[in-house]
Amino acid sequence: MRLVLMGLGVVGKAFLRMLVEKAPELRYKYGLNPTLVAVSDSRSSLYNERGLDPRTVVDWKSRKGSLSGLIDEVDLRGADLVREVEAEVLIEATPSNFRDGEPGLSHIKAALNTGKHVITANKGPLALEMPALIEMFRESGLRLLFSGTVGGGTPFVRFVRSCLIGERVLVIRGVLNGTTNYILTRMEMGISFEEALTEAQRLGYAEADPSNDIDGWDSAAKLVILSNLAMESDVTLREVEVSGIRGVEISRELLSWGKTVRLIASADKSGLRVRPEVVERTDPLAVSGAMNAVSFFTEHSGRHTLVGKGAGGEETATAILRDLVELKMSLSGVSSCS
Amino acid sequence: MRLVLMGLGVVGKAFLRMLVEKAPELRYKYGLNPTLVAVSDSRSSLYNERGLDPRTVVDWKSRKGSLSGLIDEVDLRGADLVREVEAEVLIEATPSNFRDGEPGLSHIKAALNTGKHVITANKGPLALEMPALIEMFRESGLRLLFSGTVGGGTPFVRFVRSCLIGERVLVIRGVLNGTTNYILTRMEMGISFEEALTEAQRLGYAEADPSNDIDGWDSAAKLVILSNLAMESDVTLREVEVSGIRGVEISRELLSWGKTVRLIASADKSGLRVRPEVVERTDPLAVSGAMNAVSFFTEHSGRHTLVGKGAGGEETATAILRDLVELKMSLSGVSSCS
Repeated sequence: MRLVLMGLGVVGKAFLRMLVEKAPELRYKYGLNPTLVAVSDSRSSLYNERGLDPRTVVDWKSRKGSLSGLIDEVDLRGADLVREVEAEVLIEATPSNFRDGEPGLSHIKAALNTGKHVITANKGPLALEMPALIEMFRESGLRLLFSGTVGGGTPFVRFVRSCLIGERVLVIRGVLNGTTNYILTRMEMGISFEEALTEAQRLGYAEADPSNDIDGWDSAAKLVILSNLAMESDVTLREVEVSGIRGVEISRELLSWGKTVRLIASADKSGLRVRPEVVERTDPLAVSGAMNAVSFFTEHSGRHTLVGKGAGGEETATAILRDLVELKMSLSGVSSCS
Repeated sequence: MRLVLMGLGVVGKAFLRMLVEKAPELRYKYGLNPTLVAVSDSRSSLYNERGLDPRTVVDWKSRKGSLSGLIDEVDLRGADLVREVEAEVLIEATPSNFRDGEPGLSHIKAALNTGKHVITANKGPLALEMPALIEMFRESGLRLLFSGTVGGGTPFVRFVRSCLIGERVLVIRGVLNGTTNYILTRMEMGISFEEALTEAQRLGYAEADPSNDIDGWDSAAKLVILSNLAMESDVTLREVEVSGIRGVEISRELLSWGKTVRLIASADKSGLRVRPEVVERTDPLAVSGAMNAVSFFTEHSGRHTLVGKGAGGEETATAILRDLVELKMSLSGVSSCS
């Protein structure tokens, strides 16, 4: 199976390292023999139809900060590279952009137009155009997989797709952003919002520009993905009412009543919203630190809550790898369920 | 698909009700047209090869407390009934017995010997003979499904089977018994063990003889099932070190340190055990009331915790129905994952 990898940040690099480390297991357990034929970061691209060595690529990128200077460097960039390369699968791992979904959206469409399956860890294109993308991929007979877009390595997406068969999800409520949850948890301990944010940035939880997290857009994008998947909502980011955690306070009094505040993303019949809400500390959603948690309220079997680490390069790379195994199995007609 | 249902307690009755209620959906969405051909409670049996009416059966049983007097009553009982009936699937819903697994174990073996798939909500046979049963079913080409044995309607079993592909589970830690968790939660509020137990019995969480719950055997049985499934442990109930919650105290002091006590079932390289443990109240396993929670600690994607209501007739019946849909799909060669 020939792969094109677009994006070589934390997730892309972790994926290449895992490809090296897990190669024997993938071959032995799943008959999967992935060959990396092209890779691109924001500035340069490599392409070799006989295959690139993932270890060399990741070592070079880690030492030099760029791909420039490697022997297989080519002039093709972005969607042009995706289009020109002969490969079966695009792995889309460029940063999520919630304004126009680029460059990921163009990469995904280029893959679709040239017969490539897509595994994306990039939330932007799905947040903005999920219903249309799902429809186009279904019509083309190609697969679009996106386990890595929600919850890092915690299998929220797969949980919805395979654990709730025969059930109807009536309501989704979740803590979908680890950065804001880390900040709220620290605020419970008496630290101010600003201090907690600085701390989160120092620890690598928050980016230099933290607005996608703090203002709720990252949570909203993930909510759109889960809601379309679990409730067949046919929505995009534009349909979500979003407010973030700037200006939120958590009083001693509230805590003394056994309550706290969490940034809750919710979807039900009335619509989708992200906003800070008061929750009981015994609520399974009142997770601590940089964790994610999602509750699915079902018609017959009650409320199921899945809790896990919501981000991290290695974790998200695991999700991509899981999608790759699923793709391989579905192409060979094997159910990945048993 | 012709079904034999053994056991007509809370779960069996809820399953028949759901069969009536969901018939149109099952036919439309999954092409599934189940026919109940035989049913048995502890005293009598009904059999009609052209099908019994589930609504009549459940109404009669609810009003009279027995099946006696219905037109299709037959003299066959237990394993003999399972053997003699022409059907594709045995639904085993008799009570769990952790001493010898009977009568469920004989029912399951009779099904195996006469070419019937099995869906069991009964934990006893699996707790005592899971490795051998799995092996025998694999060799026969028949399916043995058991979603309803762990966590009621919360899909712990399916989570392991389909959400952790490509991952290795290193450690399992869980709260697997709702009754003891209810009692411990009430004890946190200052109520004695005896009072909390009486209350749990009044609310229907605990049985008249609560020893399987209180002494940890129910938790141990579920741990055996999860551990064999997720870690390929090849163990039975005999390998579990078990202690229950009799004599446990939860001091004010412990609570003031932000800690509490939970009956934790755990499996790792060193073995399987069930015992009361001190846990942080912020731990995702420190769930409240009659809830269940299981954490799977994986090699690459961290800790995933699934939380849900652990029991209930309707919930467990949903799990049986989910297995029935999966069976139907796997027999028609359709993956239930996509």
